[in-house]
Amino acid sequence: MIDFPYLKEIVQTTESKILMVVADGLGGLASGNIRQSELEAARIPNINRLAQHSACGLSTPVAPGITPGSGPGHLALFGYDPLKYLIGRGALEAMGIGLELKAGDLAARGNFATIDSKGNLIDRRAGRISSDQAAPIAKRLNKVSVPGIEVTVEHVLDYRFVLRLRGENLSEKISETDPQITGVPPLKVEAMESNASATAQAVNMFTANAFKEIADESIANALLLRGWANAPSLPSFGDSLGLNPAAIAAYPMYRGLASIVGMKVIKTGPDFSSQVQTLNDCWDAHDYFFLHYKFTDSAGEDGDYNKKVTAIETLDSYIPELLELNPDVLILAGDHSTPAIMGAHSWHPVPFLIHSKWTHGEGVSRFNERELRQGSLGVFEAKYIMSHAMAHSGKLSKFGP
Amino acid sequence: MIDFPYLKEIVQTTESKILMVVADGLGGLASGNIRQSELEAARIPNINRLAQHSACGLSTPVAPGITPGSGPGHLALFGYDPLKYLIGRGALEAMGIGLELKAGDLAARGNFATIDSKGNLIDRRAGRISSDQAAPIAKRLNKVSVPGIEVTVEHVLDYRFVLRLRGENLSEKISETDPQITGVPPLKVEAMESNASATAQAVNMFTANAFKEIADESIANALLLRGWANAPSLPSFGDSLGLNPAAIAAYPMYRGLASIVGMKVIKTGPDFSSQVQTLNDCWDAHDYFFLHYKFTDSAGEDGDYNKKVTAIETLDSYIPELLELNPDVLILAGDHSTPAIMGAHSWHPVPFLIHSKWTHGEGVSRFNERELRQGSLGVFEAKYIMSHAMAHSGKLSKFGP
Repeated sequence: MIDFPYLKEIVQTTESKILMVVADGLGGLASGNIRQSELEAARIPNINRLAQHSACGLSTPVAPGITPGSGPGHLALFGYDPLKYLIGRGALEAMGIGLELKAGDLAARGNFATIDSKGNLIDRRAGRISSDQAAPIAKRLNKVSVPGIEVTVEHVLDYRFVLRLRGENLSEKISETDPQITGVPPLKVEAMESNASATAQAVNMFTANAFKEIADESIANALLLRGWANAPSLPSFGDSLGLNPAAIAAYPMYRGLASIVGMKVIKTGPDFSSQVQTLNDCWDAHDYFFLHYKFTDSAGEDGDYNKKVTAIETLDSYIPELLELNPDVLILAGDHSTPAIMGAHSWHPVPFLIHSKWTHGEGVSRFNERELRQGSLGVFEAKYIMSHAMAHSGKLSKFGP
Repeated sequence: MIDFPYLKEIVQTTESKILMVVADGLGGLASGNIRQSELEAARIPNINRLAQHSACGLSTPVAPGITPGSGPGHLALFGYDPLKYLIGRGALEAMGIGLELKAGDLAARGNFATIDSKGNLIDRRAGRISSDQAAPIAKRLNKVSVPGIEVTVEHVLDYRFVLRLRGENLSEKISETDPQITGVPPLKVEAMESNASATAQAVNMFTANAFKEIADESIANALLLRGWANAPSLPSFGDSLGLNPAAIAAYPMYRGLASIVGMKVIKTGPDFSSQVQTLNDCWDAHDYFFLHYKFTDSAGEDGDYNKKVTAIETLDSYIPELLELNPDVLILAGDHSTPAIMGAHSWHPVPFLIHSKWTHGEGVSRFNERELRQGSLGVFEAKYIMSHAMAHSGKLSKFGP
């Protein structure tokens, strides 16, 4: 939690409220014929006006040149060093579909696959069967029993599912079952550490029993497991910072990330107006709010420049309503850049502002990649964003005598 | 290698090519009557145009306020933390004259000296004898034998030479023989760690035998040894980054530095046009190129402001030819600043640009110390330059799910 060794001694609880708006994949890029980044092209009078009275900068999500996934991107925003606290693929996949993870749980990503009568793989993705076909088979897998372990299988999409094992001493240090080629049988799981052998045995028993359970399925008569990950164990965000935090996110993965750091995840609707309504509804009950806006990232990932511009403009239109709540600290940040011209996450530093009664204008007139680096925060590591949030809300006392 | 603990998991090999042009001692300074830095005074239309479409910043070679030698300066550019990977003086001196160093080799800087009949030092630099006088004496020292050790002595300049010992378990943890005063005998080498005593014994035997060998020399009848250094052992640049790297440098020290990180050092001529020709010749065979330009540093070290301006302009004139190679990533960097008004290396952050299809203009119109700090990279540690190079060439996949 916040990369400051004497944090505990300086944290103080106050009445002030922090609203952190995370626009996923906020940063963009201009290149070649595209002369303006998405933020530069967007009409964002409200955000620009805010920037004119904020402390501004560009945040480096993880490290220079490193393109983060959503996991490390968000952990940094919450004040966790993303190189110290890792979330495995299986765990994030479980979060992504809203499958609850408790400390000690072990999760894996699963593929349905096809094997022949000798047990050799014919298709590692079961002909990419549809969700309609795969969902009932995933359901069948919940019947598979392994002594001492609670087995949960939940369908994700097409041929993919998540396996969650709940039990004693389950270790993620086991190998994957996908041999990466066809014509051979799926691999047995092996322990990669001595204290993972019981887990390996249990998983191999699960697989053997699962193959029996679905042997009569014509295409998806086998499965492959990869991305083993224990539920990450992180220090509590609220306890560490003396906050009573609430998370308002429409997408399961971000609710999962918030939940895993101990935020209270508030039920909300699928669109941003519902989220803002939820924010209004729970405003009195909390002092930190993580409000997640997904649509900047999804438009960027689609490589749809105009859609991303529109997503930014839509976010801008909500700023007056957010300001009406009169937060002591308002942050607008992104977990990483997703330039539409790249159609993917990128390593580029991310536009950032923090607004409080202790910020003044910095000569920055517009909120975009080119202008914000002139701000007083310069180019800085995202893991320090929460330090700024705490400072500006009066929640950090003096360090040292 | 690149200060990112999960590097191995995200490195991916692609077809793209990285050209890193290192202008030695690139950064300069204005002060007093000199109103412009060397870069500000130089006419560099090609570099300026490049900067207008690049990601820009100022690189801190080692740490704020620290003036680096060529060793740490270059190691940082190659992605090695210069505080973690050290190159001792003896090793760098050996590299500087092109003397090959293998893992385990032990090198020292040597002075010829003069002793009287009682063995007391009269002159610690043998009257600063000329190269003409010293070279044959250095040659004689190659006849000195020490059991189990291969002795190589190579003349450097004037009264200076390099000693290289090759054998088993040679340790740099031994003391120097220069007592720093005259009227006393040269010191015996002592082990500074218990497992260095065999080395200390061997070196004392070398010195004793060497004194006998050159006892008949009138002035240079003794020698002093200092700067003991084992050949540094660094992780391979190419293996760590999935690159097939080539180094094109005219000066032995830079070839030595490239060689010690495992780059293929390509034979080239003494002037920059030969180096650029060599670059063209080997372009198809590699995917990373370290192209070293020495003349900015040597002019700066000479304290010759106009000469440094000219050296910068000369480099500028080669940019179109470099761009014709169409590198996916083009970097212009310096290992440190060498302001002509200081006539020496300095700690000042060094102008930097990286150009790729994923960079856009940043409002920076000219490549110099004053403007570049406005770039998106801000003032950043040079050890992250290779992270940027790898990111911009598509050679790093996403970190974390």
